[in-house]
Amino acid sequence: MGKLREPLKEITNCGLPQALEVMGERWSFLILRAAFNGFVHFEEFSSELGIARNILSNRLAKLVDNGVLQRTQCEEDRRKVEYRLTEKGLDLLPAMLALRQWGERYGAVEPGGPVLVDAQDGQPIAQIGIRAADGRELSWHDLAWCEPDQVGKPCC
Amino acid sequence: MGKLREPLKEITNCGLPQALEVMGERWSFLILRAAFNGFVHFEEFSSELGIARNILSNRLAKLVDNGVLQRTQCEEDRRKVEYRLTEKGLDLLPAMLALRQWGERYGAVEPGGPVLVDAQDGQPIAQIGIRAADGRELSWHDLAWCEPDQVGKPCC
Repeated sequence: MGKLREPLKEITNCGLPQALEVMGERWSFLILRAAFNGFVHFEEFSSELGIARNILSNRLAKLVDNGVLQRTQCEEDRRKVEYRLTEKGLDLLPAMLALRQWGERYGAVEPGGPVLVDAQDGQPIAQIGIRAADGRELSWHDLAWCEPDQVGKPCC
Repeated sequence: MGKLREPLKEITNCGLPQALEVMGERWSFLILRAAFNGFVHFEEFSSELGIARNILSNRLAKLVDNGVLQRTQCEEDRRKVEYRLTEKGLDLLPAMLALRQWGERYGAVEPGGPVLVDAQDGQPIAQIGIRAADGRELSWHDLAWCEPDQVGKPCC
């Protein structure tokens, strides 16, 4: 990293706390994980996650308010409601998987559970990393902060 | 996603909560962000972040306990202590940047701040995404859970 730094005090203008607000809370995270695993109905979330119904109801409403889940009527049965990931919600997946891979690499996760693969060839997905615009892998040492009007100029 | 699902109740065996424990707390996250911006001394963290000294001291100790920061003596001045990111800490960067990009895309982040670039050519880094072992970009719809002994077999 070069000499230019982010304005570190201005947490309100950083995207990360906003993301953590959505998925940093334990139950919200569990609901999101279940949604990524294909759950859509209140009763499915309730029985699978073992969350108290009032908490589940509250967290689902918050995720809908945040635009991460969409609340719609089930097409086959109009009395049923579905909670589906929006595009904004689906876009959380790289961050969730990167955190998950980190936890798997360094945490006390026991091996032997299901492996996340590319359905096409059954091969485990790659480690999520940082890449340049042209696809080269980058490490922390390759990065720099740049004023908007200096973008495109080498800054070492 | 196919029919196989993660064991959703077993949160202890998922890497993600462990990662959130390290960086999901507001102050810990601010310290990590400052560390990624090159800060190493207690006084730097203290004056830049405006954290109360006792909280800063507590959170630094926790990050050291978690193996994310390493506490070492400064080579030039033995009385000074440095907190540097370990390899485990540096490996959090893809997750932090993915969350940050998400927040920037969907949150109320004002444009005009510094841009994170590849120092070599000054071009903004790519959006962090999910890739197959061979580098192809994958979306949620391309993924499947696979039993460990079924890895390598297409599972659609």
